Amino acid sequence: MLKIVKIGGTVVDNPAELAFFLQKLSTLPGPKVLVHGGGKIATTISQSLGIEAKMIDGRRVTDAETLRVVTMVYAGVINKDIVSKLQEAGCRAIGLSGADGALITSKKRSPEPVDYGFVGDPVQVNTQLLSDLLDKDYLPVVAPITYDGAGGLLNTNADTVAGVLAVAMAAGREVELIYCFEKQGVLKDVDNPASVIPEITARSYETLKNEGVISAGMLPKLDNAFRALEQDVRRVIICSAAQIDDPQSGTTIQR
Amino acid sequence: MLKIVKIGGTVVDNPAELAFFLQKLSTLPGPKVLVHGGGKIATTISQSLGIEAKMIDGRRVTDAETLRVVTMVYAGVINKDIVSKLQEAGCRAIGLSGADGALITSKKRSPEPVDYGFVGDPVQVNTQLLSDLLDKDYLPVVAPITYDGAGGLLNTNADTVAGVLAVAMAAGREVELIYCFEKQGVLKDVDNPASVIPEITARSYETLKNEGVISAGMLPKLDNAFRALEQDVRRVIICSAAQIDDPQSGTTIQR
Repeated sequence: MLKIVKIGGTVVDNPAELAFFLQKLSTLPGPKVLVHGGGKIATTISQSLGIEAKMIDGRRVTDAETLRVVTMVYAGVINKDIVSKLQEAGCRAIGLSGADGALITSKKRSPEPVDYGFVGDPVQVNTQLLSDLLDKDYLPVVAPITYDGAGGLLNTNADTVAGVLAVAMAAGREVELIYCFEKQGVLKDVDNPASVIPEITARSYETLKNEGVISAGMLPKLDNAFRALEQDVRRVIICSAAQIDDPQSGTTIQR
Repeated sequence: MLKIVKIGGTVVDNPAELAFFLQKLSTLPGPKVLVHGGGKIATTISQSLGIEAKMIDGRRVTDAETLRVVTMVYAGVINKDIVSKLQEAGCRAIGLSGADGALITSKKRSPEPVDYGFVGDPVQVNTQLLSDLLDKDYLPVVAPITYDGAGGLLNTNADTVAGVLAVAMAAGREVELIYCFEKQGVLKDVDNPASVIPEITARSYETLKNEGVISAGMLPKLDNAFRALEQDVRRVIICSAAQIDDPQSGTTIQR
């Protein structure tokens, strides 16, 4: 089973936590693709460069300057840091953005009703490139920067990238999608790390949403999860990065 | 014949010149690898971030902060910009640093007699990765950041990277090494663009050096060229980026 693993949250910002996660990831058998988020580094660098962060409804607006910074940070320093750490751990890691080999082509989001700038929604995946690399025992490490199909780049949510890659690869093989972050899983009580919900089904998801149990930040991840399950991804798990070797400790999403 | 093309100089800093070069490159038949330098963008970004550029004998000293910036700029924004422009021109471009697939492993340079910081001299090339990608009709685009073999990155001169890749690939096939920049070739008179020296041999190189004809900046390029020729690279050419489709317009280096 091919594992598409997304690493995000504060783990990417914390070198010790990230190193621990990568070390554990390197011990997992079988083919893997790692998708990483950007953490807060892009915001810090933007501020240092005097670029003002624009947010609408908690989402970053990607103007041309910000696109340049996220490309530098995601596809540059974070991607290559992860790749070199995985190399050290004995993995044949190879970093990619969505532009490389046109891995992920996106469509720039309509400026109506809200103009988020250079943000793209994936429309096509070069699954052949991933298959070729996996067949040669490489571990693709994917930065959430995508290709606009016309010589430019777009910023894309890393959870979305992971979901889209999982769905595209599911056309040819069994795929498991694993979202890793700093918490143990989807929590019933955000302040209680032991309150992991072991399983969420489409039905219980509705109830949990109606009861307001699930935090706003978790909703896009879960929506991605259900979309992936509807498109032949076998399993979706949301778990702690520190327990990537024991994903059952987290939340399993079922149709 | 495999072409290893290095693009550098002010061309990388000039979007119109770079686009023109990439467009011409995309029309060249046969397998190709592109190695790019960093231009002045890294210096500009470093200054904006308040990192002071340290130079010894005209060479940049790469401290930890500078390594981070060059990784962002070379492997991030410049690499992905080139890749997306080549995609637009119909090439299956795929960006790599030396860390990706351990393409280029380097040894950190000794701090004696001069400590240049996180700078590496290549010791090993994963030629299999390049061959695999070339066999699938990809065009590898290589940023001059290399892998230290122990989880870290090193800054490496892009001319050196191009030379090392050419030599390594020459073990398995016919290789041509082409250094492209803003001038027409090696000039007899730096102020006269028409004074291209059409051919330099090991013998005439000695004479030109003794006469002080060749500018200091050109010496490492020519030293790389002769080293490559001694190690089975078929041809080395130094020519204008704008004339990559007519390399004979530049300087051919012969043993």
